[in-house]
Amino acid sequence: MYKRYWDEERETMPREKREKLILEKIKKQLHYVYQEIPFYRDLYDRAGVKPDDVVTLEDFTAKIPVVKKSMLRESQEQHHPFGNYLGANLSPIVRIHGSSGTTGKPTFYAISQKDWEHVAEVHAMCFWAAGIRPSDRVHLATHFSLFIGSWGSLIGVEKLGATAFPIGSGETDRQLNLLWHLGNTVLISTPSYCLHMLETARHQGRDTANSPLRMGIFIGEPGAGIPATKRAIGEGWGISVADCATTSEMTPWTTNCECEERTGMHVFNDAVYTEVVSKDNPNEPVPEMTSGGLVYTHLERESQPMIRFWSGDESRMTNEPCACGRTYPRLPDGVYGRLDDMLIIRGANVYPSAVQKELLEVPGTGVEFRIVLEKKGHLDHATVQVEYNPVYYNNIPAHELPQQLDALQKAAAVKLKNATGVRFDVEVLQPETLERAISKAKRVFDHR
Amino acid sequence: MYKRYWDEERETMPREKREKLILEKIKKQLHYVYQEIPFYRDLYDRAGVKPDDVVTLEDFTAKIPVVKKSMLRESQEQHHPFGNYLGANLSPIVRIHGSSGTTGKPTFYAISQKDWEHVAEVHAMCFWAAGIRPSDRVHLATHFSLFIGSWGSLIGVEKLGATAFPIGSGETDRQLNLLWHLGNTVLISTPSYCLHMLETARHQGRDTANSPLRMGIFIGEPGAGIPATKRAIGEGWGISVADCATTSEMTPWTTNCECEERTGMHVFNDAVYTEVVSKDNPNEPVPEMTSGGLVYTHLERESQPMIRFWSGDESRMTNEPCACGRTYPRLPDGVYGRLDDMLIIRGANVYPSAVQKELLEVPGTGVEFRIVLEKKGHLDHATVQVEYNPVYYNNIPAHELPQQLDALQKAAAVKLKNATGVRFDVEVLQPETLERAISKAKRVFDHR
Repeated sequence: MYKRYWDEERETMPREKREKLILEKIKKQLHYVYQEIPFYRDLYDRAGVKPDDVVTLEDFTAKIPVVKKSMLRESQEQHHPFGNYLGANLSPIVRIHGSSGTTGKPTFYAISQKDWEHVAEVHAMCFWAAGIRPSDRVHLATHFSLFIGSWGSLIGVEKLGATAFPIGSGETDRQLNLLWHLGNTVLISTPSYCLHMLETARHQGRDTANSPLRMGIFIGEPGAGIPATKRAIGEGWGISVADCATTSEMTPWTTNCECEERTGMHVFNDAVYTEVVSKDNPNEPVPEMTSGGLVYTHLERESQPMIRFWSGDESRMTNEPCACGRTYPRLPDGVYGRLDDMLIIRGANVYPSAVQKELLEVPGTGVEFRIVLEKKGHLDHATVQVEYNPVYYNNIPAHELPQQLDALQKAAAVKLKNATGVRFDVEVLQPETLERAISKAKRVFDHR
Repeated sequence: MYKRYWDEERETMPREKREKLILEKIKKQLHYVYQEIPFYRDLYDRAGVKPDDVVTLEDFTAKIPVVKKSMLRESQEQHHPFGNYLGANLSPIVRIHGSSGTTGKPTFYAISQKDWEHVAEVHAMCFWAAGIRPSDRVHLATHFSLFIGSWGSLIGVEKLGATAFPIGSGETDRQLNLLWHLGNTVLISTPSYCLHMLETARHQGRDTANSPLRMGIFIGEPGAGIPATKRAIGEGWGISVADCATTSEMTPWTTNCECEERTGMHVFNDAVYTEVVSKDNPNEPVPEMTSGGLVYTHLERESQPMIRFWSGDESRMTNEPCACGRTYPRLPDGVYGRLDDMLIIRGANVYPSAVQKELLEVPGTGVEFRIVLEKKGHLDHATVQVEYNPVYYNNIPAHELPQQLDALQKAAAVKLKNATGVRFDVEVLQPETLERAISKAKRVFDHR
């Protein structure tokens, strides 16, 4: 039998004791970045704050300005290629990766030897918590190129001691053949690509609920934290589903990760310190279980350390104990919103993830959808296109289907109106009409 | 300044001393595979040979039967998924990869932890010999999926301590932008893809001969050993070109690798023992500098060890000293033929690589070509399609071009006839007419 924890002392430490360690690491990082990294010295000088002003964790939240993605992009424009926040006196840079943005220049991630080893250790710890064991054969179905998600998964699996099959994304038919032939037991992919694999496997006539897989870890998109998506994946594949990941800048990005209890993501905050703050003021904390923006801090990175990085992700946090015995806080509902992606439709604030959540709760909907926004005269016009789930309507006689889909459409429209306050035209589409993403899905088409 | 060798004692050891070590390793491997691996026990029992029959290196060549690719494929068909030659009492299997064949099921490579570490060490040693140093930034432009060539390059670069940029193949425009932006100094790719990158970079209007690259290591195809291809790559990019690689089954596949003297590939035969044998009888050695088939033996692999693997590659070997000081033998002309790919045209034996070599020596030819074979009546009809090199004809007035290309066609036809004894119809094509390969190029179309 395997041990229960990767690092028992670390993972089950009393909260107060851990917070003391975190505070010490924060102080050390603040001195490092202020002394060695021009980007941070400028930022803190402009804010009139010094490392020694931070005496408590509360000081850290209240006094230290956040770093936004746009600031990193600007720094890299001025200081090719890694910006003026790379760090000094580093162990050798062993890896370069980049943001997976398809438009324009990516932002680049440079990672030192010491940091890469640290990433491997943290990823192994978190994947162990999620349930991977050395006896597993892990099917890694994300694209191996710029996207650091793929590479971070791989070194976590390697460090943990499981067998890695890094096949990448795409060539789905062949990929499924290999999955079955090799008997791979764990899948790591984006939720979107996993759903595409599921549909393709059904086309191949496979009994997907009895695949060799026993669990999946889903990264790159928050989908696996949305109950209906989680259910579609879990029931479709007959597997246990773990939601995981923060954001590329924060590598080791596994520090948000579900344990085997699947009670929302634990926050491994002694590697990446994680705060939930006011959406309007990143220096104002919010109480437990209040929705806010996630702000992350690298406690151990020497290369491109992020200190209070504003992720733009929305969540809420609890310190309620988890049955797994880990004393880390949790995000019980995962990451359920993108503050930067918020749509304003006829004056109302609407998150695409909220539309997704509502839609998937309507019995009969499939997993793929799109939001299309247009101007009609002066008014916003919002349409949701959603596929129906062929499995759900399997036993309905063909001549009754139109009537049933009509009911589905009406139910979805009512649910969306109630939840968002916005009237959406709902179009119900045939299964597999919408294009499938092999990495991150694009679901909002704003033509206004 | 960096040291000259990765492992001086090992690389510069007197030949006799090394051969004693090799013999000891061979004996140990023979006992291991005979005792623990059914595939080899069956093979050797059928051949009536026992490990103790091998007392000298000559015995090894004369008595031990070769393993062919078809035998591995058959073994995997019968014993899913890794065949009955995986090995026993292994350290954990950490990686699964596969042959890159696009038709049918790949053969699978399973590699143990201990072997993967050994692969990293050998790859670092050979890449060091080729000239990579820790200060280099390495652009890895091969597809990261089944193909073990990509992953073997990566762990070699990592172990050596250079910076890895594993971007993969494809999206060539973007890839070139990143290469220039990051200032990458070393390229690892197939020769075909490198030539495609070169053309694309010229289209982008870049001064390719003054790129940030200073050297390239070329794997997956023997192209970089063909003088004209080597020249096209070297002059086009303004880089030093190193030919490298054995074959996937033999991972660590870097054990054929050029040193900085670029005098043909050294054979790092204390990791993979390499023999040149008669094309007709794999138990018959050929003298130095006589052409024959390459047969490879893993001296340290525990997982899927290959003992006398018949590669199907043709080459010749010398023990003449090299100015680099390494005492390994060399393949001074690289790998210049595929015995299994040999074409029979009107009864004559023709190697596609020989056609390539001849063709590229005709001034004015570009780097891409195809051989098309058809039946006309009862006779074989052979056509070579070759693009002309636009740079070569840059200063020719447009009205003179047809005449010049006519001359090119005739010159190529004569050269091919003289070298192969076969009459080829030569068609000269516009530049960039033929499809470019992003991994291995397909150049023979046999419609007979």
